[in-house]
Amino acid sequence: MRAVDLIRKKRDGGENSREEINFLVAGYTCEEIPDYQMAAWLMAAVLCGLKRGEIAALTEAMLHSGEVLELADFAGKKVDKHSTGGIGDKTSLILAPVVAAGGLTVPMISGRGLGHTGGTLDKLESIPGFRVGLSLEEFRHVLRECGMGLIGQTAEIAPADKKIYALRDATCTVENIGLICASIMSKKMAEGIDALVLDVKTGSGAFMQREEDAVELAELMVETAQRMGKKAVALITDMQQPLGRMAGNSNEIAECIEVLRGGGPADLRELSVELAAWMFYLGKRCGSVEEGRNLAAKKIASGEALAKFRRGIELQGGDARVIEDASRLPGARASVDVCSERGGYLRDTNCMQFGIALAMLGGGREKKEDTIDHGVGLEFHKRIGERVAVGERLVTVHYNAEAKLGEAKALIAESFEIGDVAPAARPLVRKIIGG
Amino acid sequence: MRAVDLIRKKRDGGENSREEINFLVAGYTCEEIPDYQMAAWLMAAVLCGLKRGEIAALTEAMLHSGEVLELADFAGKKVDKHSTGGIGDKTSLILAPVVAAGGLTVPMISGRGLGHTGGTLDKLESIPGFRVGLSLEEFRHVLRECGMGLIGQTAEIAPADKKIYALRDATCTVENIGLICASIMSKKMAEGIDALVLDVKTGSGAFMQREEDAVELAELMVETAQRMGKKAVALITDMQQPLGRMAGNSNEIAECIEVLRGGGPADLRELSVELAAWMFYLGKRCGSVEEGRNLAAKKIASGEALAKFRRGIELQGGDARVIEDASRLPGARASVDVCSERGGYLRDTNCMQFGIALAMLGGGREKKEDTIDHGVGLEFHKRIGERVAVGERLVTVHYNAEAKLGEAKALIAESFEIGDVAPAARPLVRKIIGG
Repeated sequence: MRAVDLIRKKRDGGENSREEINFLVAGYTCEEIPDYQMAAWLMAAVLCGLKRGEIAALTEAMLHSGEVLELADFAGKKVDKHSTGGIGDKTSLILAPVVAAGGLTVPMISGRGLGHTGGTLDKLESIPGFRVGLSLEEFRHVLRECGMGLIGQTAEIAPADKKIYALRDATCTVENIGLICASIMSKKMAEGIDALVLDVKTGSGAFMQREEDAVELAELMVETAQRMGKKAVALITDMQQPLGRMAGNSNEIAECIEVLRGGGPADLRELSVELAAWMFYLGKRCGSVEEGRNLAAKKIASGEALAKFRRGIELQGGDARVIEDASRLPGARASVDVCSERGGYLRDTNCMQFGIALAMLGGGREKKEDTIDHGVGLEFHKRIGERVAVGERLVTVHYNAEAKLGEAKALIAESFEIGDVAPAARPLVRKIIGG
Repeated sequence: MRAVDLIRKKRDGGENSREEINFLVAGYTCEEIPDYQMAAWLMAAVLCGLKRGEIAALTEAMLHSGEVLELADFAGKKVDKHSTGGIGDKTSLILAPVVAAGGLTVPMISGRGLGHTGGTLDKLESIPGFRVGLSLEEFRHVLRECGMGLIGQTAEIAPADKKIYALRDATCTVENIGLICASIMSKKMAEGIDALVLDVKTGSGAFMQREEDAVELAELMVETAQRMGKKAVALITDMQQPLGRMAGNSNEIAECIEVLRGGGPADLRELSVELAAWMFYLGKRCGSVEEGRNLAAKKIASGEALAKFRRGIELQGGDARVIEDASRLPGARASVDVCSERGGYLRDTNCMQFGIALAMLGGGREKKEDTIDHGVGLEFHKRIGERVAVGERLVTVHYNAEAKLGEAKALIAESFEIGDVAPAARPLVRKIIGG
């Protein structure tokens, strides 16, 4: 088999076989196939498309390029959630303790923020001392001790994905749902889980802005998981505005603690309970999603979920006193309000812009190498459909440096649409696929 | 400017500007842009196409990646011919001495054979001692001494083309007429010529088997040359059967000497005179193509062309005694005939197969690294339209090793179509473009 023949087949619109894709991925991982041949194949795949069988083969080949977490000796089901990302999207930090408190194991391997979206690892690193870079051995220990663990992709997990992802980034071959699906699913399947709940965002703050694209990716991921013998469901959820009131890193941790205490903003509570309910249901902890909702609410109300979060922080080296004392989290030196210039109803937001403004202030990364200021953040005071008076606060910007403050404020201000007519109500969960 | 943005533009069907293409080619040549980004761009270019302006920009950028031969101090016009290649396609070795004998300068930079086609450099190296690897300084000296020179691409000539060509070969991005045009024209324009005659082959032995594809490439090359201020014409010529009687290396040199003596097969004589006539006309040596034909015929009849060839061989270190004594050329140990199993008219040939059979016998390269046996060759006894009796010889195979002889003979035998009805006559020159 020769790489050049597989490239030709893809270039000419053909379908690569499972064996061919294995050859390509294995050869690339061990550096027998050079970057430039993989780059040519990736561009041909983006322009000619990938068939379902190719995507499944690619996912499996990437999964088996590294280690799969062996959790067979753990009692009970292992479940996880993956989100395609957005602004203020912090449910992982709530779900992991809620679901672990409910008796399932949650081995969560997460990513960092890039561009307009935040990343779970960055948020966790707001907590002084918290280590996301555990070895797989340490990870197993943490999981055994408290049923939840939150780490980053290790060198052992799907190394082919790591290598291919870096190449896609440099060769403009990121935007293809087959490649996106294989990248996500190869990592998630490496967690050794029984079931996966997918939160596929759609709207102005999501990667998949159009709902039909989100649905297409969701169907693909659910089918890929099922082909690999895993239970899976995808919730298509609204990202036309930030989730919860906070976007940043420290402030999102604080908001999650609020929710785990039984408070917090309604939308974040609702989505967290919904996702937890599906995790309980697919993990066979409950006989229905409705039972799952009740169990999630109970674990929050009883304080067990918050206790689990505390234990998780301790086990990963973090300062658990942040739970009682949010001032132990990195903060911002100053804050300023962005106010509305007109009155009316908040009709819409250009949500991605908030993420870009946050990155400008240092709270996100424009380039992979950028460091993060965990203390800065945006606080949103209005949700779509609410009334806004002239001069009323829309956003409070918490910042540490003034360099790009003006630019960020202007971007935020122009990202709200206020009008005289109330907009139609937006359901938070728009569709459910699989399950 | 960032390579990734240029790749995105091409991937999304946009047109790269002259500045962008310069950035890409210059950056790739000096290794600031890595192979994998160029590979992704090339695949996007193959799948999305290149516009005329992009092809011209690419040609110029590749040309200016290296040195352009400075021949301004030479009296008279500098002209060259380029062929897209075929079986038995040896006219360069006749044209160079004929046109130099007519008073023009012919600075010919040629290539090696690959796949089913032969290469001028390989043929020349049949001549004991002949050096194709001259420096540009030596090349200028040879040109000054005898008006013709035949060398290979040096490191100074269009280094971007050399690097990009190797990458295209490894990434399945060869088959695009824009890239083919830029590769050919950047090298030809580096010869510092005033005019270029293109021999674009079509038929079963050509790269462009369909005449419409040959015409498209021809138009593109003529237009590109003209945009760069050069005179150019393209002759679309027939490659449905081998040109002349001989295919190989030594035996093609011998056949060229026959033509330069005034003999040789009619088709090879005719095409050589035709191409030389156009070179004389575009090089302003003659007022019409008809005058050019007469001049070419005269230079052959007078023996001046053969004398020029002798001098050229001597100047490039070759043994010029091969002209009187063909046995000084490498030969074949044995020969065997492939005979017709039926009688009738030779209606057609699958001409590319002859090139593949020749490569099997060692007379061509299957891979770039293969060495060539200059002594082996095929001798064709029949042309399309001629009568063939049962058992009559079609081809004599001259070989040195028996390893793949049976396979080669079978391939040759099945590549002739013999039927009861005489085929329509095939013109050798099918179309003329530009001029």
